[in-house]
Amino acid sequence: MVKRYNSKKIEQLIYNIYKGYGFTEKESQEVAHMLIYTDLIGIESHGVQRMIMYDDFIRNGKIRVHNQPEVVKETDVSAVVDAHFGLGQLNGIYSMRLAIEKAKQHGIGIVTTRNSGHYGIAGYYANMAAEEGLIGLSSCNSRSAMLPTHATKALVGTNPIAFAMPANPNTFIFDAATTTVPQGKIEVYRKLGKDMPALWVAKDGETPVNSHNDTKDLDALRDLDSNVGLAPLGGVTEDTGSHKGFGLGVIVEVFTAILSMGNTSNEITPDDLSVGPCQSFVAIDPSIFGDKDAIIAKFSAYLQAIRDLPSVPGKPVIVAGDKEAAAYQDRSANGIEIDDKTLAEVTGIAKRLGIDYAQYVD
Amino acid sequence: MVKRYNSKKIEQLIYNIYKGYGFTEKESQEVAHMLIYTDLIGIESHGVQRMIMYDDFIRNGKIRVHNQPEVVKETDVSAVVDAHFGLGQLNGIYSMRLAIEKAKQHGIGIVTTRNSGHYGIAGYYANMAAEEGLIGLSSCNSRSAMLPTHATKALVGTNPIAFAMPANPNTFIFDAATTTVPQGKIEVYRKLGKDMPALWVAKDGETPVNSHNDTKDLDALRDLDSNVGLAPLGGVTEDTGSHKGFGLGVIVEVFTAILSMGNTSNEITPDDLSVGPCQSFVAIDPSIFGDKDAIIAKFSAYLQAIRDLPSVPGKPVIVAGDKEAAAYQDRSANGIEIDDKTLAEVTGIAKRLGIDYAQYVD
Repeated sequence: MVKRYNSKKIEQLIYNIYKGYGFTEKESQEVAHMLIYTDLIGIESHGVQRMIMYDDFIRNGKIRVHNQPEVVKETDVSAVVDAHFGLGQLNGIYSMRLAIEKAKQHGIGIVTTRNSGHYGIAGYYANMAAEEGLIGLSSCNSRSAMLPTHATKALVGTNPIAFAMPANPNTFIFDAATTTVPQGKIEVYRKLGKDMPALWVAKDGETPVNSHNDTKDLDALRDLDSNVGLAPLGGVTEDTGSHKGFGLGVIVEVFTAILSMGNTSNEITPDDLSVGPCQSFVAIDPSIFGDKDAIIAKFSAYLQAIRDLPSVPGKPVIVAGDKEAAAYQDRSANGIEIDDKTLAEVTGIAKRLGIDYAQYVD
Repeated sequence: MVKRYNSKKIEQLIYNIYKGYGFTEKESQEVAHMLIYTDLIGIESHGVQRMIMYDDFIRNGKIRVHNQPEVVKETDVSAVVDAHFGLGQLNGIYSMRLAIEKAKQHGIGIVTTRNSGHYGIAGYYANMAAEEGLIGLSSCNSRSAMLPTHATKALVGTNPIAFAMPANPNTFIFDAATTTVPQGKIEVYRKLGKDMPALWVAKDGETPVNSHNDTKDLDALRDLDSNVGLAPLGGVTEDTGSHKGFGLGVIVEVFTAILSMGNTSNEITPDDLSVGPCQSFVAIDPSIFGDKDAIIAKFSAYLQAIRDLPSVPGKPVIVAGDKEAAAYQDRSANGIEIDDKTLAEVTGIAKRLGIDYAQYVD
C-alpha cells in the first residue's frame, strides 16, 4: 500500500541516515534535499526508494563515504572531475555548482566527471542551473542497456539527457532516457503484472518482448551478454527512427565518458567496484545572448502557445516541467507517496544505524 | 531517370550560377562546395536539388543576395548573428567559422542566428568543426510541422540536431530531425507512389496517415492551420516516447529562435518575406578536457565496439557517418546522382543566367 508522509519529516530522516553513514552535516543535507525533491516532483522510483540500493553500495564499498570529488583538469569554461567513487549525488551537486560558477563568470561552464556513481534524476542538476537563472543540462551514462539499431546485444547505456530553463509559470524541465523507457519502468510493469504497451524491450534485435510473463527474457535484460536489450527512442527499425535514439545515446557517451576519459557503458559492470558511470553538467547564462528577462518572456510565450493548442479529447498538451510543478505543489501540501515495502526497508536502515525513526513516519 | 555526373564539373556549374545571381567569387565557391558536399555524401534531397527552391527565393526576394550577416552581440564564447535574410548557407558558414574561432581561443563557441534562410543539411556545419579537430553541433528551426504530443495542430518545427566529432576511420556525424522523418521524406514517398512504412504523419493528433493516396491529408501537411502534422521522434503517444521527440524539438527552438530573439516556428510563414528561420552553431575543443588524441582514440574504439556487435542477419550495425563516408568515396570516384528533372531545372536556371552549361553536364 502507498501512504502519504510529511516531506519535511522524511527529509530529516534521510538526513539522519546519511549522517549515520558518516557523511558530514552539509553532505547529508544536500543528499536529503536531492532525494526528497525527487519524490516531491512525483518521481518515486528515484527518490526515497533508491536509498535501498545506495545502502547496499555503501555497505559493499561501491560508494565510498569519505571520498571527495577532485578537479583534475580545468579552464575558465570547463573542468574534468574525478569523483573517486563518492556518492553520485554529492559529485553531481559539486560538479553542477562548478559549472554554474563558470557560467556566471564566463558565460558557459561544462564539467565532465568520471568514476562517479548513480546520481538519481539528471533533471535535478539541470534544474540547479535554472534556479540560478541559467540554462542547465546534465547527462549520465550507465552500463550497457540499449540495443544499437539492428544489434542483437546491448552496448549503449540508457543515457538520459536533461535540460532546464527558467520560464513562467513553470521552469521547463526535460529529462529523458535515450531509450524508449528507462530500465526502472520495465521493473514497475513486471511488479504490477502488466504487459508492456509498446516495443520497449527486444530480443534478437527486432523481436518485441511485451509480456510481463516473459520472465526469462526480461531477466536477461540484466545480463550484459544476453540477446535482450532496451529499444532506443524510436524503436528498433530505421523506419521508426531507431538510429536517432541510438545516435543520441552515443552523443551522451561523448559528453560523459569520452570527454572525461572515464568508463564507457560497455566497460561498466555492476559488480566491479573499480568502474563507475560518468556524468556531464552544463550551465549557460542566457544573458550572453541578450536581455535575460526578454529571452525568458519569449520562451514562456512560446510554451504557452503550445499549451493552448487544440488536442485529442481528454488528453491536454503537456509542456515538460508542468507535471512536475503540479506534483511538487500537491506533495508539499499533502505529503510524498511511499509504499509500505519501501518504508519498511528505509526504517530498517534507520534502525540498523541506531536512529529513532518513529517521529519521522507517524 | 537518375544519371551520374562529375562532381567537380557540377560544382563549377553551381559556382557559375551563384556568380550569375550576383554573389562574390568567394561566396559562390562556398555555396558550391556546400551543395556538392551534400550530394557527395548521398543526401540528394538537400544538395543540387535544392537549387530550384533557392532560385525561387532569390527571385522573390526572400533570399537577399547582397545582405551580409552581422554580429549584434558578442562575448568571448558566444555571438548572436543577424543574417538579414542573406543566403542560409553563407550565414551558416560565417557563423560556424565564428564559433570555431572562439573554440580555438577560449575552448567553446556558441553562435545563434536570426533572420536566416534555409541552410541545407545541419550536418555540414557540425562537420566544419570536426574538420578542424573540434566537436561541432548545429541546429535550425523551421515553420511549424511537428505535432506536440496529443496536439491536433502542428507548432514545433522539424528542428534537426547535428553533432560531429573526429573519429577513425570516419568522422562521427549525427544529423537528425526531431520529427520521426523530415518533410522531404514524405514528398519522396508520394513521388514514388509508396505508402509510409510507419507512423510519420498523423491527423487529429493520433490517427495515422499512411497511404500515399491520402492526398487531401498529405497536402494539408503544408497548411499551418490544418489538423495534420508530422509525428515527433517517438510517435504520437507517451508509450512510444512521443514527449521525448517533442521536448527535443523545443530544446532546438531554445538554441535557435529563443536565444537569438528571432522567429519561433509558429511565427514562420512561408510567404512572409520579413520572417526567417533561426540556427545555432556550437564548437568545442576536446583538448580543454584532456589529450585530444587520446580522447579521439577512445571514441574511435567505442564506435568500433558498436560496429563489431552481432546483428540481425543482413542488417549490419551502422555508426552515424559511416554511410556518408562510403557515399563520399563512391560519388567522388563515380559521380553524383542527379535525376533528369532536377538536371533540366538547374540547366534551365543556367540558361536564364546566360551560362554556357553544356560543358559541365556532358
